[in-house]
Amino acid sequence: MLMEKLRFLNEKQVLAVCREFGTPAFVYDQATLERRASEVLAFPNAFGLTARYAMKASPNAAIIRTFNRMGLHIDASSAYEVERALRAGVPPEHIQLTAQELPGNLQEIVDRGVCFNACSLHQLRVFGQYYPGRDVSVRINPGLGSGHSNRTNVGGPSASFGIWHEHLDQVFAVAQEFGLHITGMHTHIGSGTDPDIWVYCAQLSLGIAARMPEVTRLSLGGGFKVARMQNEVSADFQTIGEKIKTEFESFAHQHGRKLHLEVEPGTYLVANAGALVCRVMDIVDTGEKGYTFIKVDSGMTEILRPSLYGAQHPIIVVPQVRERRKSAKYLVVGHCCESGDILTPKPGNPEQLKPRVLKEARIGDALVIEGAGAYCAAMSSKNYNSFPECGEVLLTHAGKLVLVRRRQTLDQVLQNECSEEAV
Amino acid sequence: MLMEKLRFLNEKQVLAVCREFGTPAFVYDQATLERRASEVLAFPNAFGLTARYAMKASPNAAIIRTFNRMGLHIDASSAYEVERALRAGVPPEHIQLTAQELPGNLQEIVDRGVCFNACSLHQLRVFGQYYPGRDVSVRINPGLGSGHSNRTNVGGPSASFGIWHEHLDQVFAVAQEFGLHITGMHTHIGSGTDPDIWVYCAQLSLGIAARMPEVTRLSLGGGFKVARMQNEVSADFQTIGEKIKTEFESFAHQHGRKLHLEVEPGTYLVANAGALVCRVMDIVDTGEKGYTFIKVDSGMTEILRPSLYGAQHPIIVVPQVRERRKSAKYLVVGHCCESGDILTPKPGNPEQLKPRVLKEARIGDALVIEGAGAYCAAMSSKNYNSFPECGEVLLTHAGKLVLVRRRQTLDQVLQNECSEEAV
Repeated sequence: MLMEKLRFLNEKQVLAVCREFGTPAFVYDQATLERRASEVLAFPNAFGLTARYAMKASPNAAIIRTFNRMGLHIDASSAYEVERALRAGVPPEHIQLTAQELPGNLQEIVDRGVCFNACSLHQLRVFGQYYPGRDVSVRINPGLGSGHSNRTNVGGPSASFGIWHEHLDQVFAVAQEFGLHITGMHTHIGSGTDPDIWVYCAQLSLGIAARMPEVTRLSLGGGFKVARMQNEVSADFQTIGEKIKTEFESFAHQHGRKLHLEVEPGTYLVANAGALVCRVMDIVDTGEKGYTFIKVDSGMTEILRPSLYGAQHPIIVVPQVRERRKSAKYLVVGHCCESGDILTPKPGNPEQLKPRVLKEARIGDALVIEGAGAYCAAMSSKNYNSFPECGEVLLTHAGKLVLVRRRQTLDQVLQNECSEEAV
Repeated sequence: MLMEKLRFLNEKQVLAVCREFGTPAFVYDQATLERRASEVLAFPNAFGLTARYAMKASPNAAIIRTFNRMGLHIDASSAYEVERALRAGVPPEHIQLTAQELPGNLQEIVDRGVCFNACSLHQLRVFGQYYPGRDVSVRINPGLGSGHSNRTNVGGPSASFGIWHEHLDQVFAVAQEFGLHITGMHTHIGSGTDPDIWVYCAQLSLGIAARMPEVTRLSLGGGFKVARMQNEVSADFQTIGEKIKTEFESFAHQHGRKLHLEVEPGTYLVANAGALVCRVMDIVDTGEKGYTFIKVDSGMTEILRPSLYGAQHPIIVVPQVRERRKSAKYLVVGHCCESGDILTPKPGNPEQLKPRVLKEARIGDALVIEGAGAYCAAMSSKNYNSFPECGEVLLTHAGKLVLVRRRQTLDQVLQNECSEEAV
């Protein structure tokens, strides 16, 4: 197995992050963010494209602003995300809310100009009551999922996302009741790389769109898998896009409707634009027949994906001074008093461990976890063991390291505790 | 399968929580907390007992203060937890730090009177450098684990916790170098109910203590499993304790040392003293051959254990008005745009789903997740999808509902973002 390498930081910059911002700290690379945005915006399409950043992947304003400038729109999963995007300067009409939970302030959001994608019959009905006669989009579960595990499987009978494809009659009934025009349709199937599965999904979705005569835009959601490790494979945007383009063209030929395409990548845009810089706090072993462990000052408090899915992230040891070192086999574990706080699980199986060959580590070394731009800062077991949320740094085009999120203080962790001494 | 019932709240109180504090909200029951503390303090012992609350399970000051008043000491897993316990009024000498990550302010902590349990040779060496000649405790990995999954397995060769039992010579060497007296020994094996496994662990630990002539107190850690569901079994404190007591007596007889016993329960003290009150936001289905889903305004943002381990929590639907309802089979899912955000996984297998028979639910009903006192508020994917941290409420002896943690605001979620418009 090849040893993984730093992606966008060099060793000097890693040590500068340790020195200037303390560890752990996420670093995002503006150049990678922009390169990825360009790739997504070049997604092949027949009759126009809107690409939305699924901001739940990493909602820092610095990232949202970068993508907004590049021309990406926003996929928001909650009213709170909508508000964050607006505060970061995204025009409301560039934001679409696609949420499991219908927010209490739906009217406020829609009145400001934010697009709404109804994800259930209930959501559609509530929208209809507020806005009879309007255009609206619906999320449909087309009955197929292709996640890399059940837990990232967002289509099919086991998924609660969207309106089940057999319930189209009910969609039409609600639309008719409130005079709604279903001009948008949305499906989101799950993470995959196989172009043929993407084509199959597109065909399924187009088959449903064919039954919805007012639909003019079709979103295929996100789920474009990205290779974090050297032995993993990324979705090929050009190949997938070209095949989908052909499907949209046949649809136009057959149904006389030139559908506008939407895609909503999250991981694809940010996964490899982020790195978590932490520090080797201890090295222990469990004897000759056991393992050698590197303990870092981070873990599931910043990066939960390995514990949750057995996700694999490149790990690189960066010594404090440049020197020749041998390599060794390690398990890397987090700082929580929790046996599940592991950074080197077996691929796809967090119940098992898989040692990694890394540069020989010493206490005090920096340790970088790559591929940490998506669903890491955004989806961690924050504040577990009372560790404050870590800082976030942007590496700008000019090679400058700029703090974009300060480390949380313990006072902030406690600021909402309000019990009286008497309780 | 029996339908689960509310534990300490009644339906009226559940609706009062919804009305007065909004959902989701954790509610903790002071009476249950105190009853559990009494049980733990009555753990059978031969020559004295110190019981420490593993506060990482649920670190709200209201809970810590309740336990402090009852006479429990504190097991802290980080310097931040130490600080929280001190602020809640726990005397420093009643706090012991047992941490994976050696804090930078170790001296400050120890100088204030907090006990330190060295968890690695490195930690022991650093302590020795600061405090030559002192008494200290060491955490030993005795080479056995008995977690309910590998991820809660904290002993054995796959666990990084403590000093591997084959390295005792190195412990002695460091102790000698700095004139340290190893008067305390600590092991923590993992969650279990089987008294025979507890006895085996005690024997293993006593076997190691026999080789450490200055040891006068032995901590067996925590990991006392608690039944959350009706079909689960709790550890029997009295049976386990009596058997361990006999082992300590034999040890005294054989080695002439009357060891003081310590235990460190977390889950056992708080799991069933907490409930998460949330609201049914939507009900959807995936057709006749599919499932019916209840979507709530909570999920992995408050309770991650089902997604992480396939942990089972009782779920109870509470209608807004008292009325007869039939029952139905449901999957319950959270509000995150994440297929893994499920509250009804198969036991021990978060990749699979297991429908529950619940009271027929309607949108707007309250829904209570029981057994949510341990590792829920403390270990959740907080702020995912930008949902603010929820509130926490204490149900006092007097039956009063008192807010002990305010709901976080979006402004607070964003308070540390500091990027300039230019970035």
